[in-house]
Amino acid sequence: MIEKKGSILTVREDIKVFDCTIRDGGLVNNYHFSDAFVKAHYETCVAAGVDYMEIGKNVSPTIMSVDEYGPWNFCKEEDIRRIVGENKTDMKIAVMADIGRSLKEELIPKSESVVDMIRIATYIHQIPAAIELIEDAHAKGYETTVNIMAISKSFDDELDEVLSQLSKTNVDVIYIADSFGSFYPEQIKKLTEKYLKVAQENGKKVGIHAHNNLQLAYANTLEAMIYGTSFLDVTISGLGRGAGNCPLELLIGFLKNPKYKLMPVLKFIEEYIVPLEKELDWGYSIPYMLTGQLNEHPRAAMKARDEKDTKYREFYKSLMVD
Amino acid sequence: MIEKKGSILTVREDIKVFDCTIRDGGLVNNYHFSDAFVKAHYETCVAAGVDYMEIGKNVSPTIMSVDEYGPWNFCKEEDIRRIVGENKTDMKIAVMADIGRSLKEELIPKSESVVDMIRIATYIHQIPAAIELIEDAHAKGYETTVNIMAISKSFDDELDEVLSQLSKTNVDVIYIADSFGSFYPEQIKKLTEKYLKVAQENGKKVGIHAHNNLQLAYANTLEAMIYGTSFLDVTISGLGRGAGNCPLELLIGFLKNPKYKLMPVLKFIEEYIVPLEKELDWGYSIPYMLTGQLNEHPRAAMKARDEKDTKYREFYKSLMVD
Repeated sequence: MIEKKGSILTVREDIKVFDCTIRDGGLVNNYHFSDAFVKAHYETCVAAGVDYMEIGKNVSPTIMSVDEYGPWNFCKEEDIRRIVGENKTDMKIAVMADIGRSLKEELIPKSESVVDMIRIATYIHQIPAAIELIEDAHAKGYETTVNIMAISKSFDDELDEVLSQLSKTNVDVIYIADSFGSFYPEQIKKLTEKYLKVAQENGKKVGIHAHNNLQLAYANTLEAMIYGTSFLDVTISGLGRGAGNCPLELLIGFLKNPKYKLMPVLKFIEEYIVPLEKELDWGYSIPYMLTGQLNEHPRAAMKARDEKDTKYREFYKSLMVD
Repeated sequence: MIEKKGSILTVREDIKVFDCTIRDGGLVNNYHFSDAFVKAHYETCVAAGVDYMEIGKNVSPTIMSVDEYGPWNFCKEEDIRRIVGENKTDMKIAVMADIGRSLKEELIPKSESVVDMIRIATYIHQIPAAIELIEDAHAKGYETTVNIMAISKSFDDELDEVLSQLSKTNVDVIYIADSFGSFYPEQIKKLTEKYLKVAQENGKKVGIHAHNNLQLAYANTLEAMIYGTSFLDVTISGLGRGAGNCPLELLIGFLKNPKYKLMPVLKFIEEYIVPLEKELDWGYSIPYMLTGQLNEHPRAAMKARDEKDTKYREFYKSLMVD
């Protein structure tokens, strides 16, 4: 039986607030954030006491088009430095690598980079390729995480095998990723128990990346945290693909560590999110609820939202066609 | 140590889906719903398998103005019958009574009414008056609930005394009401344990009424349910005061009892909620988050939303003034 770590009134030093606003938010606008936006966001994260900020993906420009996608899909070293300089702060910088799109040949050594952490996002069937990226990034001096996606569609024994394989790597953090926003807190608790057992036996930490299809991103993040998950993914105002993520401002409102500050986040929301909400669509809505309830990828819901389609019954029926 | 009741895959016959869209939603528009809206909503609830529908409040027209408030603030028998007829359905009709605004002299006997249940909303300091209303409604043949409001501001021993007093009455259901939307699932679990102990020893049920200030209305409703709460308050699309309530469509998507149907709810959302969202403001937003985090009444946030005020830092500071 898994036990609670800490209490609602204490500080847990293992907790890391991990902001992925630019990276997950970039999925909404193909990474076309202005430098002013990313710079303000970076300064907000520093002022708010955020522990890690993920500034984008390091996809290879030989694989995705630099005309179609903005700079934060590629995260060239000079682009990052234009925002963070030498990053002389307590906050670490992370970048996400996609299997098949990020090339280890292009990853420069940590000694030459302002990036601290590489996060490898992988499906279960890509684990050998993921391990290759993990070990390459580790050997080059980076902290690493692995985010196993779409586990709500995987068989339990396959997930166990994947966790066992990952436990033998040099990865620092293994993430529970609720890709379709379909998990309930009870299920997150069981997953936390499963991941934490493997992680603890192998000197690793566990992280959680939630989506808000069922209005449970924050609740699921709290649930995972309560039972020992350390790395907590959040985005400002939940900015992220589809129903979005666990809002940073909600999590910071809960955490008792005085190093986390809400006021800088409110400033960023006033100045950058309020206008952005008039341009971009993200966050909980009925189509995302339906894909979440059916444990499906949000892609059909994203299309419905793009088309401002509110024929929810027709949409629901279309999801249930065999 | 409290134990879970049932599992994520089973049906619990004690569960009652309690829709309070018109009653809590009426707080947003002073109960000015059209008959067409209320009729469509009633038919939706019947088709969706809802167990109870709260159609408004039974405030005395001698106390609040019938010019200012619509008919569902008063719930005259003829108004209710205009919508539900004799209510020859499996769904029960409820009405909420407010201490000091609802008069027992005006409550007709159940034998003459299509209403099945009277819900008494009370603050802790009004408990003697609440008990008077409970016993009067019970004696007249109604089912009764008591919804103890603002308990996040009460002392634990006072709440214990109130529960003890209520346990000796004829009330059927005692509600955990998260009036300010400030509770976390861990706290809801503790409250459920407390309420359930008193309820079970005295042959009563427990209910939960959540608000969504912290995006936790659904999660808190699930948490209370898992540990034995039976009466689950919901509103369609969360329509309700301030940050709104636990959405009916989310709860029905979770419950495994095949009597609950999502499609009629989607129809109502398409036809009535989508247009209403253009007129009325409700649901999670930063001002409601801030009053929730500070455990305050949402009234200041309602004013900020009315004025479309997005100066969130100023608002936050104003809440923290002594």
